[in-house]
Amino acid sequence: MGTEILLGQIINTNAAWLAVRLAEMGINLYRQQTVGDNLGRLTLAVQESLQRAHIVILTGGLGPTDDDLTREGVAAALGLTLEEDADQRQWLLERFAGRMTANNLKQAFKPQGATILPNPHGTACGYALETEGRWLFMLPGPPWEMEAMFNNHVATTLKEHFDLTTHLYHRTLHFIGIGESTLETELLDILRNQQDPSMALYAKTGEIELRLTTRAVTYEEARRHMAPTEEEVLKRLSSHVYGFDDDNLFSTVASLLVEQELTLALAESCTGGLIASSFTDIPGSSAYFYGGWVSYSNAMKIRELGVAPELLQRHGAVSAACVAAMAEGARQRSGAQWALAASGVAGPGGGTPEKPVGLVYHALATPNEIRIIRNTYSQDRLRNKSRAAKQAAYLLWLTLQGLPVPENLRVEVELP
Amino acid sequence: MGTEILLGQIINTNAAWLAVRLAEMGINLYRQQTVGDNLGRLTLAVQESLQRAHIVILTGGLGPTDDDLTREGVAAALGLTLEEDADQRQWLLERFAGRMTANNLKQAFKPQGATILPNPHGTACGYALETEGRWLFMLPGPPWEMEAMFNNHVATTLKEHFDLTTHLYHRTLHFIGIGESTLETELLDILRNQQDPSMALYAKTGEIELRLTTRAVTYEEARRHMAPTEEEVLKRLSSHVYGFDDDNLFSTVASLLVEQELTLALAESCTGGLIASSFTDIPGSSAYFYGGWVSYSNAMKIRELGVAPELLQRHGAVSAACVAAMAEGARQRSGAQWALAASGVAGPGGGTPEKPVGLVYHALATPNEIRIIRNTYSQDRLRNKSRAAKQAAYLLWLTLQGLPVPENLRVEVELP
Repeated sequence: MGTEILLGQIINTNAAWLAVRLAEMGINLYRQQTVGDNLGRLTLAVQESLQRAHIVILTGGLGPTDDDLTREGVAAALGLTLEEDADQRQWLLERFAGRMTANNLKQAFKPQGATILPNPHGTACGYALETEGRWLFMLPGPPWEMEAMFNNHVATTLKEHFDLTTHLYHRTLHFIGIGESTLETELLDILRNQQDPSMALYAKTGEIELRLTTRAVTYEEARRHMAPTEEEVLKRLSSHVYGFDDDNLFSTVASLLVEQELTLALAESCTGGLIASSFTDIPGSSAYFYGGWVSYSNAMKIRELGVAPELLQRHGAVSAACVAAMAEGARQRSGAQWALAASGVAGPGGGTPEKPVGLVYHALATPNEIRIIRNTYSQDRLRNKSRAAKQAAYLLWLTLQGLPVPENLRVEVELP
Repeated sequence: MGTEILLGQIINTNAAWLAVRLAEMGINLYRQQTVGDNLGRLTLAVQESLQRAHIVILTGGLGPTDDDLTREGVAAALGLTLEEDADQRQWLLERFAGRMTANNLKQAFKPQGATILPNPHGTACGYALETEGRWLFMLPGPPWEMEAMFNNHVATTLKEHFDLTTHLYHRTLHFIGIGESTLETELLDILRNQQDPSMALYAKTGEIELRLTTRAVTYEEARRHMAPTEEEVLKRLSSHVYGFDDDNLFSTVASLLVEQELTLALAESCTGGLIASSFTDIPGSSAYFYGGWVSYSNAMKIRELGVAPELLQRHGAVSAACVAAMAEGARQRSGAQWALAASGVAGPGGGTPEKPVGLVYHALATPNEIRIIRNTYSQDRLRNKSRAAKQAAYLLWLTLQGLPVPENLRVEVELP
């Protein structure tokens, strides 16, 4: 893996994930480094790291192939031999059940004295090794395997052997429908003068996060510490805060739909199924999601959603009238209480002076009304799709909260 | 910047960008490391790096604040003083035009003997420094400033002082429908004995990449050099190679559909719109994609796709019979020549002993036949969705290539 990172072929996301987790645990991370799949350089890096740090964590290089050298590098750095672990060998034989190549048996070997860390998500086990009061961990490279092994084994071992009484705690507020510079201006006095909790803004596609951070012994203590700041932010901007911590926009909307016993259908044109896919990413979506149409062609809009051909001829598929008709058609056909439609120009082609790339209409049809919004994004196709999917969830969220549609987005049309 | 990276607050994208550029220039990158905003650790890291490498590139830490310590760390590592640069001071004074704080003047200082690299995009200039035939560059942290300075100054200096007539070139082969260890076994003799071009396998979700790399003066020379190896791989495994270099599975299938003048519709259950979204991520999808249904509920399958209620009752929604009916229904309703359907258990809930989480059926209906495949994935909801979307494209690709469905995936059912 090291070589792939050094060639720029993959981004080292494991480094960032581990950095966050170690900070949370109150462990100071002093160095990160990447070396290639080269035994000499790897061995040297392990030796240097063990001289400097109490804890060394290696990721990657535990696979079955010849350039997976982490086991060998650690053994060389510490002057240990590699020995076969009978249990691990047995586990591998069972797991591969005959489809095993000779290479895979390499994964049954460990540096002498190491403890095997099981990997339920893959074939590469990890290893923990204590040497003169210092701890060295070898974890697999695939992020989900590495993360699970860190959480299930490494964190526990570290807590047993090091004094980790204070931790960093975060509180994240998720904002929607407000720009980064407006948000910063609204909070400037707090952002400038605040030391603890520390605060930072992060712009994501179509939304913004505000993260508060403080150090404390327990989560409750940290929350008490952060509460006055959080309350002040909410006092100023609550109509833009859709959630906290691990919430995301689609999961928040999904929970509100379930709470309010509403059902949803979708009619997507320019988003091409992305809104449906985002809702169905969240477990339990069948509780409220009836399904949807990806009505990419005009023929699908007419035949399957009942959009009038004259309407398409007069207003075009990218129009307030068309999304309104798509939403109402989807609502009636699906039997869901609410239906949401999106139509726009995703790009890079298909734009005109009147309907440029990035123009997107959304409509939400409920039994009482049809709410329509218009946005113009100015990014590439994938980001335009992504922002349009977020904006669909935003329109649902506003309506579920009983909030009005902001003036600058609202479109009023005469409905037939 | 170092501290922000070590706390996991920002991802070190500069490292990946530099890795790619250095590889392109034919410079071997042996180590990347990150240290925090700490003078002692920074000084040590600079000393160690200069002992190991001909070229050391530092990014970040050139701003005006107290924790910007790169100038100081380099000076300390090399035993140099910091001296004020009169031109840089003048430039800063003009640029800030009165709005300057005392801190900003820090940016007029440079390690003795360093050459200033101008920064048209920000206030932090960079520095180049030669010491005993080794080169050290200090570049600003913001990516666009760093990238411009590398391209405009660092690359030129390196080409002047090092022999960089050869570059690394890559050739990537994309494999589908074959596991990593089977692929490795098939190519083991080449992988083991081959030095140039070098070869490496990378497993991605639902597919595998083989990357050949060689060093040459021109792209044509590199391609000639790699051709015999590429041909040997294709001779053994061409029925699994769907594309090269920047191809992806969905763009490859899209091109084949357009070439063969075919049109496509989709009927998705467990993938929840992801297949449609993946095809519509690629510009120009309206040329072949009519649209689709996300028939998440049984009611949608019955009403919109014409799946018989008795069929659902007898076989369930996750069954070969159901996907076949969904595909044929989508084909007839949409008017597209081909239609593809997917139905399965995405998880985490909804699994049974007979139909576990990860079981997915796909059907492709064409005017002549209905091809059905069955897979069982063993990952979380998002990865199961992602693999099922890839597998849908695989079934299309096989059929577009006139290839049979592999035995281990094929399902035969009596169609009504």
